[in-house]
Amino acid sequence: MKDYIFQVEIGVRDYELDSEGIVNNANYLHYLEHTRHAFVKSRGYSFGQMSADGIIPVVSRIEVDYKSALRSGDVMESKLWVERQGVRYLFHQDIYNKENGQLVVRAIVSIVALVNGQLSRGAELWEKLGLDDEQ
Amino acid sequence: MKDYIFQVEIGVRDYELDSEGIVNNANYLHYLEHTRHAFVKSRGYSFGQMSADGIIPVVSRIEVDYKSALRSGDVMESKLWVERQGVRYLFHQDIYNKENGQLVVRAIVSIVALVNGQLSRGAELWEKLGLDDEQ
Amino acid sequence: MKDYIFQVEIGVRDYELDSEGIVNNANYLHYLEHTRHAFVKSRGYSFGQMSADGIIPVVSRIEVDYKSALRSGDVMESKLWVERQGVRYLFHQDIYNKENGQLVVRAIVSIVALVNGQLSRGAELWEKLGLDDEQ
Amino acid sequence: MKDYIFQVEIGVRDYELDSEGIVNNANYLHYLEHTRHAFVKSRGYSFGQMSADGIIPVVSRIEVDYKSALRSGDVMESKLWVERQGVRYLFHQDIYNKENGQLVVRAIVSIVALVNGQLSRGAELWEKLGLDDEQ
Repeated sequence: MKDYIFQVEIGVRDYELDSEGIVNNANYLHYLEHTRHAFVKSRGYSFGQMSADGIIPVVSRIEVDYKSALRSGDVMESKLWVERQGVRYLFHQDIYNKENGQLVVRAIVSIVALVNGQLSRGAELWEKLGLDDEQ
Repeated sequence: MKDYIFQVEIGVRDYELDSEGIVNNANYLHYLEHTRHAFVKSRGYSFGQMSADGIIPVVSRIEVDYKSALRSGDVMESKLWVERQGVRYLFHQDIYNKENGQLVVRAIVSIVALVNGQLSRGAELWEKLGLDDEQ
Repeated sequence: MKDYIFQVEIGVRDYELDSEGIVNNANYLHYLEHTRHAFVKSRGYSFGQMSADGIIPVVSRIEVDYKSALRSGDVMESKLWVERQGVRYLFHQDIYNKENGQLVVRAIVSIVALVNGQLSRGAELWEKLGLDDEQ
Repeated sequence: MKDYIFQVEIGVRDYELDSEGIVNNANYLHYLEHTRHAFVKSRGYSFGQMSADGIIPVVSRIEVDYKSALRSGDVMESKLWVERQGVRYLFHQDIYNKENGQLVVRAIVSIVALVNGQLSRGAELWEKLGLDDEQ
């Protein structure tokens, strides 16, 4: 396991709770997506620019282990590191409860890059994100 | 009040319930939007074609009266009629509980049409929807 | 128009954008709800405690005027003041684009309080929110 | 791979599309959840009754492979079969595009049952769902 290279805080909003008063499972995919977008922005890049560059990232697979629940008022620390595996980027994304440090969700999100409509080795995106040196 | 000119059935999905076990208020805007889209389709038109025709409908105002709640398993009958008022289309949209006929939501959604980026009298859209004769 | 008595910042999350790249109308109801919940918390009260006190607030009507759109990366300043009108609380809620100060949404949300299942004058809730003096 | 034991049709609603005009990844978790709930109902059981019986099903892990995209107007056939593995139920859930039969999503959702707050072998739930004979 590598060190996290990015983290962002996200607060639970009450409309994300389900009828049992805990965050609905599907919302974690939103949090994970939000975290990846914030990561891309932190690297001085954006999804708008990506699209203009002819690069379209596509989620091909997700794995999520739900470890503990979040409730009204909770704040997450959402962290990630990235691994390259063939044509895929594996985003290792973990979410912690900020207050008690407990692991909430452990996820691996696999992303492939379409460059001008073709599956790509993804080198362009990798470089744009400033990841070539550190991984 | 005019007669309804369109109706569609929509089933509550459990993930739309909030922590009190009733449909969250915001979801009704989704139901109302879904109903308008289904109405447009029923007229042989689509939002994709609308966009290709340079017509962009924009919601400028909504009013929603919440009359009764919906719960898990409930099915709606979502009905509408349309009124033209100056540059605005007023979609009068009512949602009923199918099982007991009870009124759930009474809404008026105001829509203006941008044609090639300009606020339009909306005649094009009105005609495309086959509304010119009956209203 | 009264002065605002509460405000909170809310950032647009990219999954709230619709197929035209702007925040979907329904999400504003989420933002407005989130703002009311944050307001209640700021007064040292909570929806959990409210429920324990036998008070259930119910949204009976919303009016929303959409003035301008929000896009990826935008941050809102969501503000409110409250007016009492018979058995109803009127939450006057306005959302501004933080960057340019532009009005995004102007809303009035009507709320009634059920106390032990009965429609109430709402004095209990009013007092719990520390609103009795200032309005 | 076993035969599917349940299937339900679900139509894409336009508000589920993201800024690229395809269904956002997170919505598939909603579709999968909706399918499991419909399955439980088809067995004459419900989440309300489950709760009254002291049984709480908890999603512990999801794996989703995204195979193709869904767009406005598409209809899904969402199918499942269930496998028991120690204390876990594995819901094997596949979603197909009804029109062309294409696989859209292949998912495995792991669920554990808490009975009166304790992790359970889940025999009660298994039996309630009428699964004891056929698996």
